[in-house]
Amino acid sequence: AIDAALEPLHAADIADLIEQLNTRDRRALLQLWPNGVDGEILSELDENLRDEVIAQLNPDQLAEAVRDLESDDVVDLVEYLDAPQQEAVLDALDASDRVAVEKALAYPEESAGRLMQVEVAKAPEHWTVGEAIDFLRSDIALPDQFYHLVLVDPRMRPIGQATLGRILSSARATPLKDILEETFITFNVNDDEGDVARAFNQYHLISSPVVDSDDRLVGVITIDDAMIVLDEEHTEDMLRLAGVGENATISDSVFETVKQRFPWLFVNLITVNIAALIVGLFDQTIAAYVALAALMPVVASMGGSAGTQSLTVAVRAIATNDLTASNAWRVIRREMFVGLLNGLVFAVVMGAVGTFGYGSALLGLTLALAMLINLVVAALAGVLVPVVLDKLKLDPALASGTFVTTTTDMVGFFAFLGLATVILL
Amino acid sequence: AIDAALEPLHAADIADLIEQLNTRDRRALLQLWPNGVDGEILSELDENLRDEVIAQLNPDQLAEAVRDLESDDVVDLVEYLDAPQQEAVLDALDASDRVAVEKALAYPEESAGRLMQVEVAKAPEHWTVGEAIDFLRSDIALPDQFYHLVLVDPRMRPIGQATLGRILSSARATPLKDILEETFITFNVNDDEGDVARAFNQYHLISSPVVDSDDRLVGVITIDDAMIVLDEEHTEDMLRLAGVGENATISDSVFETVKQRFPWLFVNLITVNIAALIVGLFDQTIAAYVALAALMPVVASMGGSAGTQSLTVAVRAIATNDLTASNAWRVIRREMFVGLLNGLVFAVVMGAVGTFGYGSALLGLTLALAMLINLVVAALAGVLVPVVLDKLKLDPALASGTFVTTTTDMVGFFAFLGLATVILL
Ligand SMILES: [Mg+2]
Ligand SMILES: [Mg+2]
Ligand SMILES: [Mg+2]
Ligand SMILES: [Mg+2]
Ligand SMILES: [Mg+2]
Ligand SMILES: [Mg+2]
Ligand SMILES: [Mg+2]
Ligand SMILES: [Mg+2]
Ligand SMILES: [Mg+2]
Ligand SMILES: [Mg+2]
Ligand SMILES: [Mg+2]
Ligand SMILES: [Mg+2]
Ligand SMILES: [Mg+2]
Repeated sequence: AIDAALEPLHAADIADLIEQLNTRDRRALLQLWPNGVDGEILSELDENLRDEVIAQLNPDQLAEAVRDLESDDVVDLVEYLDAPQQEAVLDALDASDRVAVEKALAYPEESAGRLMQVEVAKAPEHWTVGEAIDFLRSDIALPDQFYHLVLVDPRMRPIGQATLGRILSSARATPLKDILEETFITFNVNDDEGDVARAFNQYHLISSPVVDSDDRLVGVITIDDAMIVLDEEHTEDMLRLAGVGENATISDSVFETVKQRFPWLFVNLITVNIAALIVGLFDQTIAAYVALAALMPVVASMGGSAGTQSLTVAVRAIATNDLTASNAWRVIRREMFVGLLNGLVFAVVMGAVGTFGYGSALLGLTLALAMLINLVVAALAGVLVPVVLDKLKLDPALASGTFVTTTTDMVGFFAFLGLATVILL
Repeated sequence: AIDAALEPLHAADIADLIEQLNTRDRRALLQLWPNGVDGEILSELDENLRDEVIAQLNPDQLAEAVRDLESDDVVDLVEYLDAPQQEAVLDALDASDRVAVEKALAYPEESAGRLMQVEVAKAPEHWTVGEAIDFLRSDIALPDQFYHLVLVDPRMRPIGQATLGRILSSARATPLKDILEETFITFNVNDDEGDVARAFNQYHLISSPVVDSDDRLVGVITIDDAMIVLDEEHTEDMLRLAGVGENATISDSVFETVKQRFPWLFVNLITVNIAALIVGLFDQTIAAYVALAALMPVVASMGGSAGTQSLTVAVRAIATNDLTASNAWRVIRREMFVGLLNGLVFAVVMGAVGTFGYGSALLGLTLALAMLINLVVAALAGVLVPVVLDKLKLDPALASGTFVTTTTDMVGFFAFLGLATVILL
């Protein structure tokens, strides 16, 4: 009954439905499934729910579910499962599939070797279109989906690939070598999956061969999987910029969520307490002139906003390889001018607020100078922090936000209260 | 000479090189090009540089450059060009290509109609594999790249599609209808390109037909273009969250950049000045107890960080359709508990800081209570702001960051200074 009700839905949508239920409803729904959830739905499910759902399948159901998946989907399904469940899935595979999956699991996490499927349509380099078609029509096992025929030399090294479209539209006598695609890029099993995904986007690849350390063809990565990785990389960057664990999703439990968010809140707590100590240095100035307490967050907050703006642009540009060593100085100089211009405008505005709103031209002057300083510092910090992190081979998104706002808080407070001490007292 | 030097590079990499030069160097480089930049490079260039580069081509060079592009690439190239340049490019096209491009330009910006190419490989629904292959081998014009053969009924409505892989590996007598792909999704010319891109990612589509309002096949969208859109949508979300113009890039001029960033800085200026007025309400409390001035940013800043965390998770979840009306309450409840738990922990920590660091148990109590309140408010604001924006059919990413930090600043200051007035005075 449930199979029939869900029949018209795509596995990805069924997985989304399952994700949106709470644990109890989810368990109830799964018990209604006569033969257990199928493999496509399993592989569409969020990683952190797979354990739970697989635990409700008996070995036969599990074997049935994973049998028809491509090797890359099985790898994706099992790579982060607990050991006993991973073992159960592997046991459900044919011997040859199991070898392929275990080999993939031996490659590093988030590598091309884990992303690729081992099912490849390939042909010797000297074949013609006719030979290729006869071969594809013969009784061999082919990938579910494939878009290129990869040509290999006698030592199994890929030397090019032809799109199926060109093969189909060429005469049978045409040598495959004459219709190879112009852009031909191969990846190594150890390449980072994020770099692979960005290369797919940069070069508009549809599928690309993957080679081992001896340059031998061992698999192929297809763009649909690369697109998913690109999507994940973006999510990671956004979450990291905000100081959230990179795998956070809304289906995580309260405790998991606290665990993901606590560390950067704690770092923020320490830095903002240091900023409080800076403010504390000027307690006599504040005691003499209480309006300063109200206005110092204005200077700090504007710095934080401006810093976050330039940070975000810089992090994106680094991620897309648009900000590199060759133009870093130009970008830094540009940010400085932007900070200077914004700083001048907001200096004038806050100068007026101080002079007319708070009735003191000297307070206005203090606000104006502090604003100018902090907006220039903000613009510079926003671009320097990620550039330096990147130079240090750290993720430019990682906690950059906290660094930048810490800087603008401290500089904002120190500049404003320091200037106030000099100008107003 | 320059053609030879750049020959081994992909057009996308050449475009990136051109983007990284400053205006003067770029002009010098372009003058070295004997026949002008080719069309592939033009279509890889950042939108805001295309005017500049096209302006340096004479009409013949321009005609030569655009002649071999697919219709979607021409549309992408010209859609945001100034009118005279757009005219120049259109004049360079064959009459039939020109009609196709002008038709696409009549569809809304960022629609499927603009993203699709009109070059489609299609066949009548009753054909066999053999007929399809003979047709593809005949002298007809085919798209540069295609992955499916779309089957159409006599009224040109698409009824399914077969992958080239299945066609190639099936016997000639097989009816195409027997090898249609299971997942078959068509888009309407007016569909939003972002929705199209997310559907490609959700359903692992490779290419999909586009139909007009009469359900007739008018084009096809391929995954490489959908991937570019998905990438752009992410960039937009990140930039909007940070209050930066959605098209900001590091090659924008200083003035453009100031123009992009000024508006949200100005909004932030207004809100933070309102927050300053709130602080001003408590100037007697602060005068009596100056340490409050140093500690109030701690409460505000922790709220801002926690709010940004839950905001970012919520914005991502809305963008991926994981946060919907059906689970919004559960997610809001979860955030509230997360805020409560984090609030309790940091209340204890700041209670200790107040008691031991600043030597006052009552100050510690004030800090603890204010922290708890602000972290719960932060968690709630972080999820409610984007959910409400989304309900109002506004972009949940748009300026959410400013709303949330404004809320946490105001609540933080008011709660902390208000409690201090009650508890400490
Ligand atoms: Mg989902
Ligand atoms: Mg999903
Ligand atoms: Mg993965
Ligand atoms: Mg990664
Ligand atoms: Mg795959
Ligand atoms: Mg990354
Ligand atoms: Mg670029
Ligand atoms: Mg580029
Ligand atoms: Mg395009
Ligand atoms: Mg576009
Ligand atoms: Mg295209
Ligand atoms: Mg858009
Ligand atoms: Mg959007």
